[in-house]
Amino acid sequence: MKVGTYLIKRLKELGIKHVFGIPGDFNMDILDYVEDEEGIEWIGGCNELNCGYAADGYARINKISALITTFGVGELSAINAIAGSFSEIVPVVHIVGTPSTKSQSEGAILHHTLGNGDFRIYTRIYQEITVAQTCLNQNNAKSEIDRVLRECYIKVRPVYISLPVDVCHQEIDVVTDLSEDLLNLSLSENCHDVEYTAVNHIVEIIRKSNRTIVLIDVGTSRYDATNEILEFIEKTGLPFFTSPMGKGIISEDHPQFGGIYIGNVSESHVKNEVEHADLIISVGAIKSDFNTGGFSYHVSQAKTIEFGHEKVKVFYAHYENLSLKQILPKITSCLENLNNLPQIQPPYQYRLLPEEVESKLIVQNWFWREISSKFFKPNDIIIAETGTSMFGLMDIKFPKGATFISQILYGSIGYSVGATLGAALAARNNQMKRRVILFVGDGSLQLTVQEISTMIRYNIQPIIFILNNEGYTIERMLHGLKREYNDIQQWDFCKTLDYFGGAGKGNSVRISTKDEVESFIQKFSPDKIQIVEVIMDKYDIPRALLETAKNTYKQHVYEEVIPVLKQTKEKRIKEELDEKTKGVKEF
Amino acid sequence: MKVGTYLIKRLKELGIKHVFGIPGDFNMDILDYVEDEEGIEWIGGCNELNCGYAADGYARINKISALITTFGVGELSAINAIAGSFSEIVPVVHIVGTPSTKSQSEGAILHHTLGNGDFRIYTRIYQEITVAQTCLNQNNAKSEIDRVLRECYIKVRPVYISLPVDVCHQEIDVVTDLSEDLLNLSLSENCHDVEYTAVNHIVEIIRKSNRTIVLIDVGTSRYDATNEILEFIEKTGLPFFTSPMGKGIISEDHPQFGGIYIGNVSESHVKNEVEHADLIISVGAIKSDFNTGGFSYHVSQAKTIEFGHEKVKVFYAHYENLSLKQILPKITSCLENLNNLPQIQPPYQYRLLPEEVESKLIVQNWFWREISSKFFKPNDIIIAETGTSMFGLMDIKFPKGATFISQILYGSIGYSVGATLGAALAARNNQMKRRVILFVGDGSLQLTVQEISTMIRYNIQPIIFILNNEGYTIERMLHGLKREYNDIQQWDFCKTLDYFGGAGKGNSVRISTKDEVESFIQKFSPDKIQIVEVIMDKYDIPRALLETAKNTYKQHVYEEVIPVLKQTKEKRIKEELDEKTKGVKEF
Repeated sequence: MKVGTYLIKRLKELGIKHVFGIPGDFNMDILDYVEDEEGIEWIGGCNELNCGYAADGYARINKISALITTFGVGELSAINAIAGSFSEIVPVVHIVGTPSTKSQSEGAILHHTLGNGDFRIYTRIYQEITVAQTCLNQNNAKSEIDRVLRECYIKVRPVYISLPVDVCHQEIDVVTDLSEDLLNLSLSENCHDVEYTAVNHIVEIIRKSNRTIVLIDVGTSRYDATNEILEFIEKTGLPFFTSPMGKGIISEDHPQFGGIYIGNVSESHVKNEVEHADLIISVGAIKSDFNTGGFSYHVSQAKTIEFGHEKVKVFYAHYENLSLKQILPKITSCLENLNNLPQIQPPYQYRLLPEEVESKLIVQNWFWREISSKFFKPNDIIIAETGTSMFGLMDIKFPKGATFISQILYGSIGYSVGATLGAALAARNNQMKRRVILFVGDGSLQLTVQEISTMIRYNIQPIIFILNNEGYTIERMLHGLKREYNDIQQWDFCKTLDYFGGAGKGNSVRISTKDEVESFIQKFSPDKIQIVEVIMDKYDIPRALLETAKNTYKQHVYEEVIPVLKQTKEKRIKEELDEKTKGVKEF
Repeated sequence: MKVGTYLIKRLKELGIKHVFGIPGDFNMDILDYVEDEEGIEWIGGCNELNCGYAADGYARINKISALITTFGVGELSAINAIAGSFSEIVPVVHIVGTPSTKSQSEGAILHHTLGNGDFRIYTRIYQEITVAQTCLNQNNAKSEIDRVLRECYIKVRPVYISLPVDVCHQEIDVVTDLSEDLLNLSLSENCHDVEYTAVNHIVEIIRKSNRTIVLIDVGTSRYDATNEILEFIEKTGLPFFTSPMGKGIISEDHPQFGGIYIGNVSESHVKNEVEHADLIISVGAIKSDFNTGGFSYHVSQAKTIEFGHEKVKVFYAHYENLSLKQILPKITSCLENLNNLPQIQPPYQYRLLPEEVESKLIVQNWFWREISSKFFKPNDIIIAETGTSMFGLMDIKFPKGATFISQILYGSIGYSVGATLGAALAARNNQMKRRVILFVGDGSLQLTVQEISTMIRYNIQPIIFILNNEGYTIERMLHGLKREYNDIQQWDFCKTLDYFGGAGKGNSVRISTKDEVESFIQKFSPDKIQIVEVIMDKYDIPRALLETAKNTYKQHVYEEVIPVLKQTKEKRIKEELDEKTKGVKEF
């Protein structure tokens, strides 16, 4: 079998049915193998960064994904996406087509090099942001492909495969039917003694606690322990809360769901419940700024049991090399027949957000509530840019089975557009009719807009809400409220589909009043790609963003932001009044 | 003076009047200083990669440029542009706004990090592609800013400055009027003895040669030796040739200009002149694949004197640490009164390219000849994507004073669009009414298209020729001629300006016949931004690209490409005949 064939077949074995990237003269050889292989499809995006984001989005739905770029220019263009996947614990196999072994050994000054004959630079750079790297040759191809793919899967982070054009076509000695020689993707077994001790330690603590809560974060799903934690919760009856990054991992309509805990940014009843617990069982936590309300967690380590990917911390005691996925069921089985665990909390209701003004225009808090209660459906894939969108979604309830995609830790603007392409293809892949809904600001969309063209090209039908609020509103809240650098060029967003060759393939609408939102929701039909431009005020922000800004950027918020928000509100009230008065005059 | 002010004032001292980038919460503090400083303007682009390309284009006109991005996500998005600047010898100051000194020292898990508390990763990555790096603090700010800016200027490559948000506002002790403490940008003096020996050695060889030619490459202008080489040529009367990357450095209407030398890809009379010389004086050479016709130079080192930035190689003898700019005038002065130097060659004429078919449609070779003879004007800045455009321009004459911008070595697709933004701003900066003309393919444009929005926003008026040939035509010639991965989504390019908010600010036209080209040229007026979509055949390529492909991708070209080109030509002839017959019937 040729190295190219072997690699592509291994990707298929991992469940990868779409590969993203851009052709270049050093990767077209491997692209031939992709195109020629049944059951796997090449998705040609518009640029490599966007393709990297797409691969990330795909992996969040499909568990793992692959990206193929060309040497130098291609891989460096994609690097920010791969760094994001590393940061957010997303397994992406990044294959780079490189110059022939001969050219590399000669140090030829090829195009796409730095002109210095050093062919290792890009690999050195990638060592910083991937968990395994390899450069294939005929001898190592089989073992290295298997090793690196296993690392990607097990460590749940990106890996890097450098594939010289000539090596692609070299024959290697493997069984014809790879089902007889599957990749080893199993975790190594937890050491019995360590696990036994830890389980007893943990079970005893849980038994003694009067008020235990579970705090679910993103690692839970990334480390493939969602089912295990669900079983734990259901068998113990313990209430659970999630972090922003953990939102939706377990359905928010679950009767034991207590809310989103974001430190000081939490709604007050949620904050109370969490911070007054005797014992917190924290699973897969990432304690980053935006995930913790600007480090405002008031939760003591002395009452926290923390489950990581491969370790458990019981208060201040560390147990190393214990896989989350393996240890959880054992704890569950020790606890399931106990009766003295805390009572189930009443089901959580997101508090109604204050609407502030009786405005006809679209106000952020109103918009999110409306979307949640009237637009969302079970199993929606909800994607949000790390801007007002992500913060807006923090205060609303997700439907059953919804999946949430956002880069709350890495926060690369423009990410969500590429991720939508990938997630939508993965959703199609899974043959479940899930809607894919993107919320992105006008500023963020500008970074990666061309990937809407790829959505049109491959016939996917996401619903894209473009929140047009005249620039980088989230940045204004953090610094430079009225600075010009937070302004952008205004685009004619309703022409997006036409421009990108999608005339007749979708619908576009601009809505600027509450009535128009209602009317859009009523008339909505999901069979085409949709662009929904939502006009919002430049200085209007959702509750959670204001609270986060207060935590982190105190002085600026109190001195600059709040007065402007107040003015804006007053101006709006006045306009509304004028409008009403005008109405009176007219009739 | 505050560190922020000091840094921005130093940029101004270097002649930088525009700074490119995207705001982010770790760089907005320094952006305040940019906005508040007179005489320097913030240019907010659509994404960081494009801004990096813009900074590169700006530096090619303005000598040096600056880019400001935010920590992590911003700097990694831009890295491919900076690597391109390193490769192509372009000095860009990349300033990255980073988290506060406190957060960094605590290893806080901030957004934009990899979540592991390591704040040095991005700097380590940048060490691979910049010639100097620094992380500023209050103590080192003055000396480090001065050191790094000097390195950028002297070494003519990118540098990296990490600026924590808090350091930006710290006070440092410097003179108020920086004109009393200018940056030291002078080169160190060549060692007299080494230089004296080298000059004598070289002069003696030149004197003895009967047929000396000068081969000018891109290093000549990058190392600021254009005037010195011009003087050398004019005083000695020697004929000169240029490489592709050296095209236009000295006006092509100069009476001593001999043509473009690209090894086997050269027009045959040029190849003869160069390869039959006794002595080749090569200046600032980059012997990369596309710059040498796929390494097909037939020029012996035993008859070459090679001037690099800081060394001279006389046949096989190396002289180190001799600056090009300093040694050239000394050689000139030894030679200027000699009479036995070779006679001036007759002025070079680009051969007329074969038109192949009497087609009404636009054929590549015809198009380039037409543009050269009827559209170009003196002092045009001509920018070409590394695709059919760049190769097309190799066979046509540039007007007097034209500047050529292309990434022939690094070849990152999409580069030219960002570079156009930068070059046009730099040209405006220089107050010379130079036209900026971009040639970009439909495939390449898709990577970076949103920067046309920035051109509209800042009111620049480039002329953008979009060569629409249904995908990545250059890639087809190298591999996968009819593969789907070389296809792209078709866009409605004439709506570009409207979509990006430029309705009424420019003109858009689609041309698909020779008559329409003629008519466009006749009616052209340069006072607005122009989109010119030029419809070309998917398999039509300029002469130089076919020759390059033959050199490098022989088998594929002979087996796949040439038969298809032949078919395409025959099909076109047939269509033309049908059209004529149809005409006959009609009348």
